[in-house]
Amino acid sequence: MKKLIVGQSGGPTSVINGTLAGVYSEGKKKGFKVYGMLNGIEGLLDGKMIDLDEYFNNSDNLELLKRTPSSFLGTCRFKLGKAEEHEDLYKKIFDILDENEIDSFIYIGGNDSMDTVESLSDYAKEHNKHQNFIGVPKTIDNDLPITDHCPGYGSACKYIATTLKEVISDNACYGDTKKTVAIVEIMGRHAGWLTASAALAKDDNCPGVDAIYLPEVAFDIDNFVKETEELLKKKSNIVIAVSEGIRTEDRRFVCELLDTNLQTDAFGHKELVGCADALGRILRDKLGVKARPITLSTLQRAGAHLASKTDLEEAIECGKLGADLAAKGESGKMVIMTRETGKKYQIKYEVFDDIHKIANVEKKIPLEWIDVENNYVKEELIDYMRPLIQGEVKQIYKNGLPQHITLKRN
Amino acid sequence: MKKLIVGQSGGPTSVINGTLAGVYSEGKKKGFKVYGMLNGIEGLLDGKMIDLDEYFNNSDNLELLKRTPSSFLGTCRFKLGKAEEHEDLYKKIFDILDENEIDSFIYIGGNDSMDTVESLSDYAKEHNKHQNFIGVPKTIDNDLPITDHCPGYGSACKYIATTLKEVISDNACYGDTKKTVAIVEIMGRHAGWLTASAALAKDDNCPGVDAIYLPEVAFDIDNFVKETEELLKKKSNIVIAVSEGIRTEDRRFVCELLDTNLQTDAFGHKELVGCADALGRILRDKLGVKARPITLSTLQRAGAHLASKTDLEEAIECGKLGADLAAKGESGKMVIMTRETGKKYQIKYEVFDDIHKIANVEKKIPLEWIDVENNYVKEELIDYMRPLIQGEVKQIYKNGLPQHITLKRN
Repeated sequence: MKKLIVGQSGGPTSVINGTLAGVYSEGKKKGFKVYGMLNGIEGLLDGKMIDLDEYFNNSDNLELLKRTPSSFLGTCRFKLGKAEEHEDLYKKIFDILDENEIDSFIYIGGNDSMDTVESLSDYAKEHNKHQNFIGVPKTIDNDLPITDHCPGYGSACKYIATTLKEVISDNACYGDTKKTVAIVEIMGRHAGWLTASAALAKDDNCPGVDAIYLPEVAFDIDNFVKETEELLKKKSNIVIAVSEGIRTEDRRFVCELLDTNLQTDAFGHKELVGCADALGRILRDKLGVKARPITLSTLQRAGAHLASKTDLEEAIECGKLGADLAAKGESGKMVIMTRETGKKYQIKYEVFDDIHKIANVEKKIPLEWIDVENNYVKEELIDYMRPLIQGEVKQIYKNGLPQHITLKRN
Repeated sequence: MKKLIVGQSGGPTSVINGTLAGVYSEGKKKGFKVYGMLNGIEGLLDGKMIDLDEYFNNSDNLELLKRTPSSFLGTCRFKLGKAEEHEDLYKKIFDILDENEIDSFIYIGGNDSMDTVESLSDYAKEHNKHQNFIGVPKTIDNDLPITDHCPGYGSACKYIATTLKEVISDNACYGDTKKTVAIVEIMGRHAGWLTASAALAKDDNCPGVDAIYLPEVAFDIDNFVKETEELLKKKSNIVIAVSEGIRTEDRRFVCELLDTNLQTDAFGHKELVGCADALGRILRDKLGVKARPITLSTLQRAGAHLASKTDLEEAIECGKLGADLAAKGESGKMVIMTRETGKKYQIKYEVFDDIHKIANVEKKIPLEWIDVENNYVKEELIDYMRPLIQGEVKQIYKNGLPQHITLKRN
């Protein structure tokens, strides 16, 4: 019996476990014994893996898995590095795979994870190892190139748009008796895809957000204050969506203007805290208006109770195709989604051969989809996002709360 | 035809519009023409009122109203003051009521709003005015005395418990490969009812939060750091729930230890910003651990998509009883809920005669329900809260988003 191991890497999403469910069920169908590595490549290096049959040889548990946020197997942000510089790590990984007679390796992740898939696949080819390596995309940031969009993005959009409808309604509760400003900070370091989804909140019973500031456009504090002042002349209650990653022309993050106490993570990314808070203070000081910062934090990536049915189904399909490719012996390839042209939204699941073109490349919003002058997004971008939030996933409730499945750790 | 006017006051909740729906439907049944005052007493003073038949003589709209967060009519935080000091305001209100031939007045609100009901009812009695005044409770804070609990509280608890399950899951995604701390800041200035609901997140697929810090207990920074350090020795990923209102023994808010830039609102309440942020910085400095502050902000009171069915039904029933009392000519009374003794949760809707005993009194968590030593809550409190989050409200979705009804403002 052939053996497949699957891992999850990078920031979790609401539907990354849907992809895991797809890998597992299709893997079984293709005759694999399916294992999970705990905490991605980092756990694998410690030999940490589990037999997924222990959990999922039970269709109820598989349904719970599809509704469970975060990474069921645990995740990591482990930078494998180049093989020539870290021969020992590569050797160790292949020793572990050989010892456990693993034939195929599927990694569910974003940019950094595709880098790992690429490196391992290249190493295997160069060293005549029989294992094959497949990447399956996930990221709320939607910043992977080639694929039309990434599983996880649609559910985060649905969470953001739903939450913003509620926030906009709440923020308007004083009407014209009080000027109120809410500044909602949304994830997305370099790409504004997620922040752009704030535009989806607008419908015939919600006026929508009043401005959207994306990291693709240089942020000007003085303009921001002026534009907010103009908005407040027209209406009393405004809601502004900002990306955590907005930066001034000279490349400083907005939060850096107030707060120099930033940390960096393992990839050298700066942790961006308090962008909405910084802007709120600036508005309070300059305009004398109460500005409430609201930071969606991890809620936007973990809000599985608001998962998009479209997104969950796509996440599962991507996982299934991953297992299918693994069975076919493909390597160094990534599952992608292609949107069919035409009015009706339809996705084709395809294979992209050259993972080199995906790893470490960040896809940003095309500038022609941004309405820079009005601090908003254009209809093309709304049309791109709207289909991704369609449909609801029926949750399994017990005692008033949605049920999940969690790993039994010793 | 007798005329009833209804208003909403104070902070909104997810189900305050359920109460409005109850007042409207029962008011109609009792033969009233039902008006809504916009932005509570503040809007009424400007003569701002609408005919609710324009919106709700349509059962679909009434169903949307029950699912709409925030205050449909708009709200206010208007302090009416004593009649002897503000005779002009009182006179103006009764002039407006007389001009519009209003017979009954229902105010949906919390402590401050009950103060308004009390004052107007007293004034009417003293000045032989025919209008009667009824209070219907609402507050996510659950700090009104006499009533077993307040409509709005259960839905906020359900939002918090659901969100915390997701946050706990997300926070654990690195497992033992990384120490992670999330500090979740929950509303509640003086009473910890809402923060206590963090305990509900614990079930057989969620380990729950690791500590709950309530405003009823003096907060000690050094102990907090020591206790968190102890927790981190036992497990890698911890989630701590804190009330925005926790204070040190010398009555300083925790956020004041770092941030002196606080504003006060119309009632002289200090705006509490950044408590979780302050604690996160302290942990980072003292323990060198990444601590992520998560502030649930207005999301917890506006999260109608996660409303508790029990709470919504109770909110509607309270509104109905309010209209019933109005029709009976009662005045200066408030609707309350009494919990039947016995194992099965059951609520009786009753009338409390002496609103003086309710207005401006804050009900806190009884100390015997708090596990001070372990920074947690006792089973009695969990048993009190659990029934309030039961049941889900089927949302009306369109284009991927829950639908609401909003006021058409000119």
